[in-house]
Amino acid sequence: MVPPSGGSPASTPDTAAGSGVNSPVLHADVAVIGGGVIGHCIAWEARLSGRSVVVIDDEPGSGASWAAAGMLAPVSELHYQEEDLLELMLESSHLWPAFAASLARAGAPDFGYLTTPTLAVGADAADRRALMDLRAVQQANGLLVETLTVREARAKEPLLSPAISCALDIPADHQVDPRRLIASLRQVLAGHDQGSGTAVAGAREGFAVHHRATALLWEDGRVSGVKLASGGTVRAGETIVANGLQAADLGGLPDWIQLPLRPVYGDILRLGVPLHLRPLVTSTVRGLVHGVPVYIVPRQDGTVVIGATQREDALPAAGDTVAAGRAVSAGGVYQLLRDAQVLLPAVAELELLECTTRARPATPDNAPLLGRVPAPGPGHIPGLIIATGFYRHGVLLSPAAALICRGLLDGKEDPRWQALNPDRFSSQPQAAFQFTKETA
Amino acid sequence: MVPPSGGSPASTPDTAAGSGVNSPVLHADVAVIGGGVIGHCIAWEARLSGRSVVVIDDEPGSGASWAAAGMLAPVSELHYQEEDLLELMLESSHLWPAFAASLARAGAPDFGYLTTPTLAVGADAADRRALMDLRAVQQANGLLVETLTVREARAKEPLLSPAISCALDIPADHQVDPRRLIASLRQVLAGHDQGSGTAVAGAREGFAVHHRATALLWEDGRVSGVKLASGGTVRAGETIVANGLQAADLGGLPDWIQLPLRPVYGDILRLGVPLHLRPLVTSTVRGLVHGVPVYIVPRQDGTVVIGATQREDALPAAGDTVAAGRAVSAGGVYQLLRDAQVLLPAVAELELLECTTRARPATPDNAPLLGRVPAPGPGHIPGLIIATGFYRHGVLLSPAAALICRGLLDGKEDPRWQALNPDRFSSQPQAAFQFTKETA
Repeated sequence: MVPPSGGSPASTPDTAAGSGVNSPVLHADVAVIGGGVIGHCIAWEARLSGRSVVVIDDEPGSGASWAAAGMLAPVSELHYQEEDLLELMLESSHLWPAFAASLARAGAPDFGYLTTPTLAVGADAADRRALMDLRAVQQANGLLVETLTVREARAKEPLLSPAISCALDIPADHQVDPRRLIASLRQVLAGHDQGSGTAVAGAREGFAVHHRATALLWEDGRVSGVKLASGGTVRAGETIVANGLQAADLGGLPDWIQLPLRPVYGDILRLGVPLHLRPLVTSTVRGLVHGVPVYIVPRQDGTVVIGATQREDALPAAGDTVAAGRAVSAGGVYQLLRDAQVLLPAVAELELLECTTRARPATPDNAPLLGRVPAPGPGHIPGLIIATGFYRHGVLLSPAAALICRGLLDGKEDPRWQALNPDRFSSQPQAAFQFTKETA
Repeated sequence: MVPPSGGSPASTPDTAAGSGVNSPVLHADVAVIGGGVIGHCIAWEARLSGRSVVVIDDEPGSGASWAAAGMLAPVSELHYQEEDLLELMLESSHLWPAFAASLARAGAPDFGYLTTPTLAVGADAADRRALMDLRAVQQANGLLVETLTVREARAKEPLLSPAISCALDIPADHQVDPRRLIASLRQVLAGHDQGSGTAVAGAREGFAVHHRATALLWEDGRVSGVKLASGGTVRAGETIVANGLQAADLGGLPDWIQLPLRPVYGDILRLGVPLHLRPLVTSTVRGLVHGVPVYIVPRQDGTVVIGATQREDALPAAGDTVAAGRAVSAGGVYQLLRDAQVLLPAVAELELLECTTRARPATPDNAPLLGRVPAPGPGHIPGLIIATGFYRHGVLLSPAAALICRGLLDGKEDPRWQALNPDRFSSQPQAAFQFTKETA
């Protein structure tokens, strides 16, 4: 498989190798494009396998991860998503304790991993019926969901409204703090840094490359690294595309590969709990309020996160189209405060610290695009792995994504996850495909 | 009237004059403590009278002025306040056009002064009755308030909800942008700077002293200036105390003077209007929604300001008592978004840009503390003017406050405003009063 000469990807290594100033080159075993939770977990697992790693992101942790509540909730997330995903979600949920422990053993600062349970509550009779229907599905899948009386629920969480219609205890749904998780992963990655090669001037801090990736580099029919917006390059034996929604805009992907990622916008709030109201809740509270989901996630620092709206259309931010995807919806904030107060009236007494909006990378079937890309001939495109489209589940699925990627790096493909292949929405590869995007 | 020797205020000028490094001294005809709208308007009027002026504030414009909507609304504000204030409010309202024009003539950048009308609207039948009762009072006071049908109101403002219960057109209630007004005043003050004396090292930019005022200086029985937190001093023939709530904490005030200022907290929102919804409204909309007031003020830049809640208790911000007065109330934000949507459903479509909370300086009778302070003997304490306690009306009242202060500087007291005397909540001055606070 040789890219067309017009794209001249083969010239890039020469150019790059020939100049340390105009086209600085960095070498690593693995280049991870995208510095969210997924990218950093993949990088960490690759690092544990003995490989040198770089993470390429001009604004690490600022995308969907920045707005993630960090619920590790395979059971209650079943409500909103396909059962097809359940196996992957349960797998990753089972991986979380060992993943968290290995990170802690490596000296990672606390990242807010809590095994406190989740309480699912409904506001009205219809919400109760919906949650009880869900419970039947959950139990049919072997998941532990215990019905509580309102009195029992309020014994656990005294600030719950007495007017709720039902409550379910879900002991297996836990949480982590995604912002602290990324900071923690970056710290252990920096400590383990053994990257080789010449530094990208002014850009490299250990494992981290603070530039935007613009395109894949190709050489001799394989992906050989990443071109940066700065003009530099990262040469790598394996390149993992984990930059969420931006994956579809990456240059150098074969034009027959469709990455049908769509943004699903969500508003979340962060609030401070006054001392006399602490703890507001000890469990994560997932509510259904007149059919609309809302969750309230308590953090260890006395704040709570309230989320999350879902909008397929970006708010048309006036005069600043670049930031349109991050414009906070007044209606979304209103809805979250309204519904959270139905379940926990004391929310009105909290301090509003932050309103944040980000887009989640969703796919047509809401499952991630995760795996190698078939080549036009037999086998796969060497040097390329796709890991994007994690939608609402990125934080939960990150240990599984990291282990699946490690398996691919080691040449082992787990047949359980073949359905996640990233070309499942693409037309068949052509014998001689064309590049429509910049390749070098 | 000589302060007790224990306070040793007379020693300060000596010390200050003797050292340009440890106790730098700045001289001006007038020292204004407090850099909000009131302080800057007073400074500007004093400057127009030919006096040199300094404005002392470590964070100018960051207090109540930062959260002010800038409604110039003597008519509709009558609703919420005593009729006693009405004469002052109307006087200042009549002063606004000339004040704005003089500022513009002086080369002030645009400060968002708009003579668009105010529309008062009610949500339900009780709100309609309340607004109609108010209209009777307003008309009895000679104010122009025109009843509109809902159809007429929606012809003026098509995005008004068809479900409103009533609408009143109030052509005399206008608006200004307080943040731009302060920026504008600072620019013209800087342009007119003729301050004398040695510079306060690193602190003086023309008229502005970026330090906190800690106490009044006294000399020979008169107030002779201001002591700064930096250790420096401002020597001035007249000192005007215009620092809002902080006035009560100023050292060097005679202990028999009570400045009973209480904070009334308010949350306001700033939102961006998407291009397809512009203009959201052209009038300022003041609503009464199930008895709760809410206003929506359109700005020229395509944003709207929605306010304002009123809370007498600060939100107990957890772990950060300093910022407690500025903690945004989740319940307050919810209430504003809820009530604004009742009147203008399209508010849900806006971008939430900012939530801000500040405390307004209120007095027991809700009228300002404005004037000179009687001395224990005949006459007043020389060199001292108080101008604080403007509560919800600071922006409206600033031209009147500035002219009243100018009159006092010129030795002319207008008998109409004697009722505002700042010692009206104080016990009688004693022949030999004691200082309880630091005086130098």
